[in-house]
Amino acid sequence: MSDLATIEGLLAPRTVAVIGASDDPTRIGGRPIAVMRRAGYAGRILPVNPKRETVQGLACHPRIDDLPEAPDAALIAVPAKRVPESIAALGRKGCKVATLFSAGFAEVGGDGEAAQRELLALAREAGIRLLGPNTLGVYNVDIGYYGTFSSSLDTGLPRPGNIGIASQSGAFGAHLGALARDRGLGTSVLMTTGNEADITVADAIAWMARNHRTDVICAYMEAVNDVPAFLAALDAAREAGKPVIALKAGRSAVGARAATSHTASLAGNAAVADAVLAAHGAVAVRDPETLMDFAYAASKKILPDRHSLGVITVSGGAGIVISDEAERIGLPMPAMPAMPDDAQATLKRILPYASATNPLDCTAQALNDPSLLKSFTRAALNDGEYGAVLCFLTYVAGSPALCDVILEAFRPLRAEFPDRIIAFCALGAPDVLDRYDEAGILVFDDPCRAARAIHAVCGMGAARAKPTARSPVVSPVALPSVSPDEAAAKALLARSGIRAAPEIVAEDAEAAAKAAGTLGYPVVMKLLSPDIAHKSDIGGVKLNLTDAEAVRRAHLDILDAARRNAPEARLSGVLVAKHLSGGVECLMGLNRDPRFGPMAVFGLGGIFVEILNDVALRPCPFDVDTAREMILSIRGARILTGARGRDPADIDALAEMLSRLSVFAAGAGERLISVDLNPVLALPTGQGAYALDAVIELEGEA
Amino acid sequence: MSDLATIEGLLAPRTVAVIGASDDPTRIGGRPIAVMRRAGYAGRILPVNPKRETVQGLACHPRIDDLPEAPDAALIAVPAKRVPESIAALGRKGCKVATLFSAGFAEVGGDGEAAQRELLALAREAGIRLLGPNTLGVYNVDIGYYGTFSSSLDTGLPRPGNIGIASQSGAFGAHLGALARDRGLGTSVLMTTGNEADITVADAIAWMARNHRTDVICAYMEAVNDVPAFLAALDAAREAGKPVIALKAGRSAVGARAATSHTASLAGNAAVADAVLAAHGAVAVRDPETLMDFAYAASKKILPDRHSLGVITVSGGAGIVISDEAERIGLPMPAMPAMPDDAQATLKRILPYASATNPLDCTAQALNDPSLLKSFTRAALNDGEYGAVLCFLTYVAGSPALCDVILEAFRPLRAEFPDRIIAFCALGAPDVLDRYDEAGILVFDDPCRAARAIHAVCGMGAARAKPTARSPVVSPVALPSVSPDEAAAKALLARSGIRAAPEIVAEDAEAAAKAAGTLGYPVVMKLLSPDIAHKSDIGGVKLNLTDAEAVRRAHLDILDAARRNAPEARLSGVLVAKHLSGGVECLMGLNRDPRFGPMAVFGLGGIFVEILNDVALRPCPFDVDTAREMILSIRGARILTGARGRDPADIDALAEMLSRLSVFAAGAGERLISVDLNPVLALPTGQGAYALDAVIELEGEA
Repeated sequence: MSDLATIEGLLAPRTVAVIGASDDPTRIGGRPIAVMRRAGYAGRILPVNPKRETVQGLACHPRIDDLPEAPDAALIAVPAKRVPESIAALGRKGCKVATLFSAGFAEVGGDGEAAQRELLALAREAGIRLLGPNTLGVYNVDIGYYGTFSSSLDTGLPRPGNIGIASQSGAFGAHLGALARDRGLGTSVLMTTGNEADITVADAIAWMARNHRTDVICAYMEAVNDVPAFLAALDAAREAGKPVIALKAGRSAVGARAATSHTASLAGNAAVADAVLAAHGAVAVRDPETLMDFAYAASKKILPDRHSLGVITVSGGAGIVISDEAERIGLPMPAMPAMPDDAQATLKRILPYASATNPLDCTAQALNDPSLLKSFTRAALNDGEYGAVLCFLTYVAGSPALCDVILEAFRPLRAEFPDRIIAFCALGAPDVLDRYDEAGILVFDDPCRAARAIHAVCGMGAARAKPTARSPVVSPVALPSVSPDEAAAKALLARSGIRAAPEIVAEDAEAAAKAAGTLGYPVVMKLLSPDIAHKSDIGGVKLNLTDAEAVRRAHLDILDAARRNAPEARLSGVLVAKHLSGGVECLMGLNRDPRFGPMAVFGLGGIFVEILNDVALRPCPFDVDTAREMILSIRGARILTGARGRDPADIDALAEMLSRLSVFAAGAGERLISVDLNPVLALPTGQGAYALDAVIELEGEA
Repeated sequence: MSDLATIEGLLAPRTVAVIGASDDPTRIGGRPIAVMRRAGYAGRILPVNPKRETVQGLACHPRIDDLPEAPDAALIAVPAKRVPESIAALGRKGCKVATLFSAGFAEVGGDGEAAQRELLALAREAGIRLLGPNTLGVYNVDIGYYGTFSSSLDTGLPRPGNIGIASQSGAFGAHLGALARDRGLGTSVLMTTGNEADITVADAIAWMARNHRTDVICAYMEAVNDVPAFLAALDAAREAGKPVIALKAGRSAVGARAATSHTASLAGNAAVADAVLAAHGAVAVRDPETLMDFAYAASKKILPDRHSLGVITVSGGAGIVISDEAERIGLPMPAMPAMPDDAQATLKRILPYASATNPLDCTAQALNDPSLLKSFTRAALNDGEYGAVLCFLTYVAGSPALCDVILEAFRPLRAEFPDRIIAFCALGAPDVLDRYDEAGILVFDDPCRAARAIHAVCGMGAARAKPTARSPVVSPVALPSVSPDEAAAKALLARSGIRAAPEIVAEDAEAAAKAAGTLGYPVVMKLLSPDIAHKSDIGGVKLNLTDAEAVRRAHLDILDAARRNAPEARLSGVLVAKHLSGGVECLMGLNRDPRFGPMAVFGLGGIFVEILNDVALRPCPFDVDTAREMILSIRGARILTGARGRDPADIDALAEMLSRLSVFAAGAGERLISVDLNPVLALPTGQGAYALDAVIELEGEA
């Protein structure tokens, strides 16, 4: 049975058995039945409970073996110790997927972990896929299927819609579902995966990528337990054109500690997870409100390919506040290039003193004449060519009396510009605001949240419009049997096209002087030893040597220092390299993440990395364009592009090197632990970039 | 008539005349009357309109001169050109304050500005204070006074409460009022000041600081038009223990441009305004949602003096998300030191595997036994001693059935810990959530917004608990008649206790060598000229000179370079200074802001300032403790405290110097344009800090 068919059975079963069914609609075994009946689930519910003849008015079966048919899905609401016998019986009956509400497994550690492993083995043997244990279950709004005991449904059922939610945490997932409902947002399905003994958030995402009722996917994770499946699911969603908005929790020290004890998952490094999400087209968020804002904005299925915002406002103050926020988050608000004659004339007539055309302040005049709003918004969409127009209408749009007039003005615009976002910042009664929403207009109460959501959705559109990065060709890299010394590391990298400064290994002082003559002065010299990592600490590095005599003396001094300070170390000679200067010092590196494999890192030297943690991170491999984006994404990028009167650095050469390094990592395989190129000197444009040092760390012996 | 009495008349008049009164309740001259009657205003409304006998059922007076009494306040809703005659008539009648709804004054520029100036002169002559022009007016919820034509009131009147709102922008202020109302927050008064020809936001704040119905003050400004009054108002609010939360718009390039054309105010530099707000105890925010969140949190009048958060949650996931956010914003979440025995026992029983005690995950057990919530929350307040406890209860707290039980558990805690914040993250119907709010529990739907609001309110509490900074003693500083050269600048600063590296001015090469011998090698030498700002550009600086011969040569070279490159410049000699090294390069400076006076700035040298704009700013003067806070507030502060294996820098000496510089600025008066000490070298702890360069720019001749 394919994964997708399994999840289909889990989320849209025609028959569902409830093991441990209860007559009490507030108990775990009773709640799902009560809710399904309330929601009009059309499938068949089969309660199982040896102590009852009926459950909530339905005929009850004493044992699983007595069921009249093989249920598509089962909900198991019995204590942990009785779960195994239920699984076995369900297997005998031919059921293919079971939801385990029961807790007391891996999340309690120790014995629970062992019990969970045994349970999984048993389920595999029985041919049953498992959701949970320790899950709150799933729901599928459209068909009224509620395989969940969440009390969130006591205060109302979800509104049907196109937002799907996948959450590792049960209560947090239910919170998201309730939040969507209370905000009037429509959801398709909710799936909470609990301990993820078997089925994971990745399975949920993959299913939603194919589900025609889901257009936007929200995901909450504490850890990614099956990386290849997770990445494949993200890629499937991207291919289907469905945005994935992900909240990966466990970013902080406290958060990561708490995540470890929660749902039995080890939280990975948040920066790594964010980089992986971004590389696979998902949008990372930090809080549930932003998750819902972005999902709502994307749910209209308009992802503009122009990343710009035009603002029309009845309050000059709000226009300023929105402009400030747009600048802070990097959402462009270009001025209107030229107003069309009629709009210009109108503008001059009513606002003779208007100087800025974006934001455009309609003033209170818009209240007297809503056609102004229409004419300005049309000008912004047509002439300003903005990807999105945000109208700050506040309580004006909330007025039931004005709602018809405003809708009449905006409906034609909505039809005329189907690929652009039209959003209102509006306050009012939900039934009034819903009418705009139903007309395809996004409605937010806070203008800055609106700006952030528009920024996110424009970003999704831009990402979609961009041609998919060509995956670079990866060839296997033959690694030496042990970690190489600097010269060997550079030689190894050179075979992958990663350039170091020209250099020659010299065995003796005379050879060093000859090498320096060949390379041209000045030169640097460095001790070569696989056993000494911090050469400069023991006097193993000499910089800026300008003549043969200095080179000869340096050779002797370096070997002498090595003999005195590290008598046990193996010495492979002394490296003579061209002394390059005048560029910008960067660093590049690779680190193998235990979950996500090799990650490339780029940053500027010194405090940018050490104090400000200003680095770009990306899973390997990636192409040159992606590398360039990484390089330009760091906060200190202005140092490379020519700030402070510097020559711009050779960013093309840096990007080429970074991409090649990522390809090297992908080809080198699992023995590669890390690579450090620190510094990499980026010379001025056109003059290249060179690794001035290289450390490669390999695992064990080949 | 005092300012406060004027504002009292404006916000709480016993009689109000409406000039240009309209029978149509949707017109500017009709709306205030209609709303006041709807709201039950007990004062007397006196409509004035020559064309009508009655207005909305009230007797109407043809002319102001016909009014039966002097109204406490007047609302003027006639076209701009007819405003002057109304003001004059109101003056004759004895009215003391008028609200000018009329637009077409300074906000339209040119003639409008002149008209506004004339109007103000006329009003002064008539003894009338003005609100506006171009204002939406004011309201005072408690007495049902609505001197405003805002259509925001069409969809409902505000709820009475203790949040006061002052806004320069009319529509934005009304948006804030409507936002508060729609969120169920109670407001006391709203005052919008429009063009601020006379009465300003500062007057509103000063009045609210004294108003016993207002406990929290929200302010929106695009510019501060009367700085001394504004600062005095902030200080009055601080003294009254009332938090001021301020949104100063116009931070971005676009925003500042838009602000200029809006309500006729020139937006000041946002960073300067934020620094001034902070120095006077106000909290700066960027968006209306945060403004309301912080105001709501402060409205409970609990400003804890302990800046820490304990989290109790029914969702482990939410606990992680909150921890992540707390770490991001700097809100401490220390672990519980030790649970009391009973709580510990309970915890062990229900959560045998719990490791982290903050956040404390109650799991779904809390649903079955809400007394657990109580016992854990009590432990957090009592033993954890947290300033605030946030309970993530989501839809559980929204359940009408559980509401009573939860309230019963929390009411005793609320009474037992009156100085601590108890907050819920809850989803549910407003009437259910209101019950918690009424019991003194803060209710948020988003946990991260809750964390940010708690952080802000704990910050307000900490600021209040801190002894007020002693204002340092300022003595007048005698400035020279023109901008001094480097040596004179250093000498001037030295008299205020600001130390430079030891140095001597040398007239000739021999004197230079002698000076170097006195100071000790190595030395630096610099051209002294009041006419050359960038000495190093013309070869006027020589570093690290190690013997007498080098010093002599440098003296000749420097003078030679000056003669060649700047033949017109006056030369005062060459400065010989001890070459200090081995510390951290910082910069300190002063800049006179046209509105807020001298601002001191502190940052680290190089990219921290130039690329990252990582500086601390503060109005002068301030004490040493404040200076230390500034220094430690920059992002790169770790460089000073000993990151990267460095010796910690002498922060005490830096703080002393920065405070002295601020005192110097205050004493120097308005002729001081700027001071640049760049670099200031901070040596390791105990070894002091020295200005290595000093540039003082003075205005004109003395």
